[in-house]
Amino acid sequence: MAEALAQARTAADLGEVPVGAVLVDGASGEVLVRAHNLVERDADPTAHAEILAIRQAAARLGVPRLEQAELYVTLEPCAMCAAAISFARIKRLIFGAYDPKGGGVDHGARFFEQPTCHHRPEVIGGLQEQECGALLQDFFKARR
Amino acid sequence: MAEALAQARTAADLGEVPVGAVLVDGASGEVLVRAHNLVERDADPTAHAEILAIRQAAARLGVPRLEQAELYVTLEPCAMCAAAISFARIKRLIFGAYDPKGGGVDHGARFFEQPTCHHRPEVIGGLQEQECGALLQDFFKARR
Repeated sequence: MAEALAQARTAADLGEVPVGAVLVDGASGEVLVRAHNLVERDADPTAHAEILAIRQAAARLGVPRLEQAELYVTLEPCAMCAAAISFARIKRLIFGAYDPKGGGVDHGARFFEQPTCHHRPEVIGGLQEQECGALLQDFFKARR
Repeated sequence: MAEALAQARTAADLGEVPVGAVLVDGASGEVLVRAHNLVERDADPTAHAEILAIRQAAARLGVPRLEQAELYVTLEPCAMCAAAISFARIKRLIFGAYDPKGGGVDHGARFFEQPTCHHRPEVIGGLQEQECGALLQDFFKARR
């Protein structure tokens, strides 16, 4: 999560919403990819940290499924990212801050609980919750 | 929808799940982009027709929001694509076949009905439903 937090700080420096993600090989513990939000810079509404990490790792491995992967992300994934995590068959999801306003795991769509979800990762929420959330709060406070 | 169906047929020819999408400028009626599923070829679990269309159009326009756009897609979008449609501020969504097994608009996550959804497009479902659905049924029948 420390590496995901570093990614989130890089996003903040670029003026992007500070969310960072790291994909780790669940077997070896090796970091596969690091990513952060790039919605504004890339003019891409899908360029959330999780989507970028998944796309890069899948492209590198040459398959659209990452069955051994664990995803660390500083914020509860939205419905778009939760569904992408499921499609990518990610084994375990570990996130930091909960997101009552936009989350799709423990809020709103609760994607993994739907009958339309065909792969559910193991989910651990609230890891370094305060530090992950504080980054977002500081970012939005500074923009007001 | 005829153009989206043509895209879906191209996907089927490539061995991809036959879903096609077309983004149209709601003001001029001009086609902005055409896309179809490329999950297997691109080794990208997020490469659904809708995501590819949104990413291409946003990149071309240089902004992550497509406020005047209308999206035609042959199948009810999944939760990932529904959320991406919302983030891209798409004005109107017109889809063909309903998808009880994986849809995220009228099934499962019902993303646009969630309090975590902050932009709801106008939605028209079931346009050329039979033709759009038949393409998918034929594709999966042939693979069994």
